[in-house]
Amino acid sequence: MKVRGRQYRTLWVADDGCSVEVIDQTRLPEEFRVVRLTTLADAATAIRTMQVRGAPLIGVAAAYGVGLALRADPSDRSLDAACGALLATRPTAVNLRWALDRVSSALRAVPPEDRVAVAYELAGALAEEDVAICERIAAHGEPLLRELFARKGEREPVQVLTHCNAGWLATIDWGTALAPVYRAHDAGLPLHVWVDETRPRNQGYLTAWELAEHGVPHTVIVDNAGGLLMQQGKVDVCLTGTDRTTRSGNVANKIGTYLKALAARDTGVPFYAAVPSPSIDWSTTDGAAVPIEERDPREVTALPGVPVHNPGFDVTPARLVTGLITERGICAASEEGLLGLFPERR
Amino acid sequence: MKVRGRQYRTLWVADDGCSVEVIDQTRLPEEFRVVRLTTLADAATAIRTMQVRGAPLIGVAAAYGVGLALRADPSDRSLDAACGALLATRPTAVNLRWALDRVSSALRAVPPEDRVAVAYELAGALAEEDVAICERIAAHGEPLLRELFARKGEREPVQVLTHCNAGWLATIDWGTALAPVYRAHDAGLPLHVWVDETRPRNQGYLTAWELAEHGVPHTVIVDNAGGLLMQQGKVDVCLTGTDRTTRSGNVANKIGTYLKALAARDTGVPFYAAVPSPSIDWSTTDGAAVPIEERDPREVTALPGVPVHNPGFDVTPARLVTGLITERGICAASEEGLLGLFPERR
Repeated sequence: MKVRGRQYRTLWVADDGCSVEVIDQTRLPEEFRVVRLTTLADAATAIRTMQVRGAPLIGVAAAYGVGLALRADPSDRSLDAACGALLATRPTAVNLRWALDRVSSALRAVPPEDRVAVAYELAGALAEEDVAICERIAAHGEPLLRELFARKGEREPVQVLTHCNAGWLATIDWGTALAPVYRAHDAGLPLHVWVDETRPRNQGYLTAWELAEHGVPHTVIVDNAGGLLMQQGKVDVCLTGTDRTTRSGNVANKIGTYLKALAARDTGVPFYAAVPSPSIDWSTTDGAAVPIEERDPREVTALPGVPVHNPGFDVTPARLVTGLITERGICAASEEGLLGLFPERR
Repeated sequence: MKVRGRQYRTLWVADDGCSVEVIDQTRLPEEFRVVRLTTLADAATAIRTMQVRGAPLIGVAAAYGVGLALRADPSDRSLDAACGALLATRPTAVNLRWALDRVSSALRAVPPEDRVAVAYELAGALAEEDVAICERIAAHGEPLLRELFARKGEREPVQVLTHCNAGWLATIDWGTALAPVYRAHDAGLPLHVWVDETRPRNQGYLTAWELAEHGVPHTVIVDNAGGLLMQQGKVDVCLTGTDRTTRSGNVANKIGTYLKALAARDTGVPFYAAVPSPSIDWSTTDGAAVPIEERDPREVTALPGVPVHNPGFDVTPARLVTGLITERGICAASEEGLLGLFPERR
């Protein structure tokens, strides 16, 4: 996507052919800054401190982290240690495990002296795959927005509510939840996005920044406000990303997503999650089994002595989800629905 | 209630017998500071800028504001202008209208030369009435907490979740939603309060400050987190205040309350609102008819150029409310329920 008119991805291999450059998302929206990662420790820190964030992006970043580790030491031991260190950075997004499993099992079959080159190839392929997935999600989601526009008599803009950032910053390019929005906007569909601020880390301001750069009308609201807007008929669809969706369609996503899904159900607003298949945890059906990351209380307040609990995610039960937008199409939030699109997982 | 061991109310007449002193709630919890109001403009500004806030407290503060106005000019015209100016400060809380109606109709029957003295008497009576109401709410709510403790086998603390500040700072003393908590705590019942941060103005930190001063165990969470906690069985009861409850039991309260009520319903957690009768709007049954205050976007973000919508309240439909705790007892959130306790309103 474009930043001040120039094409960017969130992550790319630097001119030296081995360092990895990323947009530092902890500085946005105040400052657009690129940081260079040259070691495994750099990559792990970037993921843990959320310089890179978003389930799809951290999967790819972790794959490159393995490449950086192997540059220093291409042994099996180094490979295992790198995967362990990267997997430990963030517990909820399943993309991290998915990417590391793919990369490490492939690399184990490669002689150590060839591993660095193969690791970069694999990571690059994951990045391209992410872009392709997001483009397909855009293509499958756009008709949904178009249908909502038709249902409104094609007069007023389609009102989308989103939580956290599931835009291009959360992926390599395009985004998940926002991909259909960008595609529909580019095709001339009138849209307006309500952007949940998303405390405690305020990823909503990343979303607002993205949308502003792309010229999509939007308004930031506090996380408390979405229910009122839905009661007032000011939201046509809720559209979020996911950090892990279970085989049965339960959607783990940024803390607070569940509350918006409840309001959507209560007010008759459709609620969709954009779910790239690497975010699907095929091994779990139980939403309560998804590990919920507990984050630093200092993200919530700097006031001394105030006790804080800071869980990072919640799980929206499948029964509240109208549908899942995957790269293969839209399906019901259920095992049957997902297996209809991914029969190889039966 | 006590602040650093010394007894305080949120508002009192100063030593000079005419100025009104209030705790400046815009400075808390960082700084405990008392400000002196000497004119109508001071009182209106204090309400509008939320130096005093909370539906019951702003009702009483407005009554004193009339007294301050009459000191400058006790005429009918001055009385009307003062009531108009004070009523315009905040639109949602019905207490403001209630207090001003009571004070102005009584004062109109009094000769101008006696009005100042009578205005202070009336305002003082409203303050005492507020304290008495809160004490009765405490008495009616405490058994509810005791029953929850019994249901848990009297082993673990009762887990209360509250939104915004409905503690003593929102009233003259004791609070509404927190009054039963203080009373139960003082009687030795083990309790823990989950405190919603309550963006954008973070009144949760007022609640945390109050609870800390009183020694009640508590933990601050972001507004997004309450749904997860309820899913995890970590909340036994939701307890909030109200800015205006309709005759039919719809509860207007701080923005975000509706989302917590939805989560409570979805997870089987009881949801109670503490409703002093001056917060009941007997003239309205329709929740959607409650005026929702639109507040300054700068409360949400200081980032330049970010479009913001900042509604201050939402309305929780009566169907999501387990019960209303009033000064006359607990009733169903319905016209029938309220009229059972307030038959004079039939």
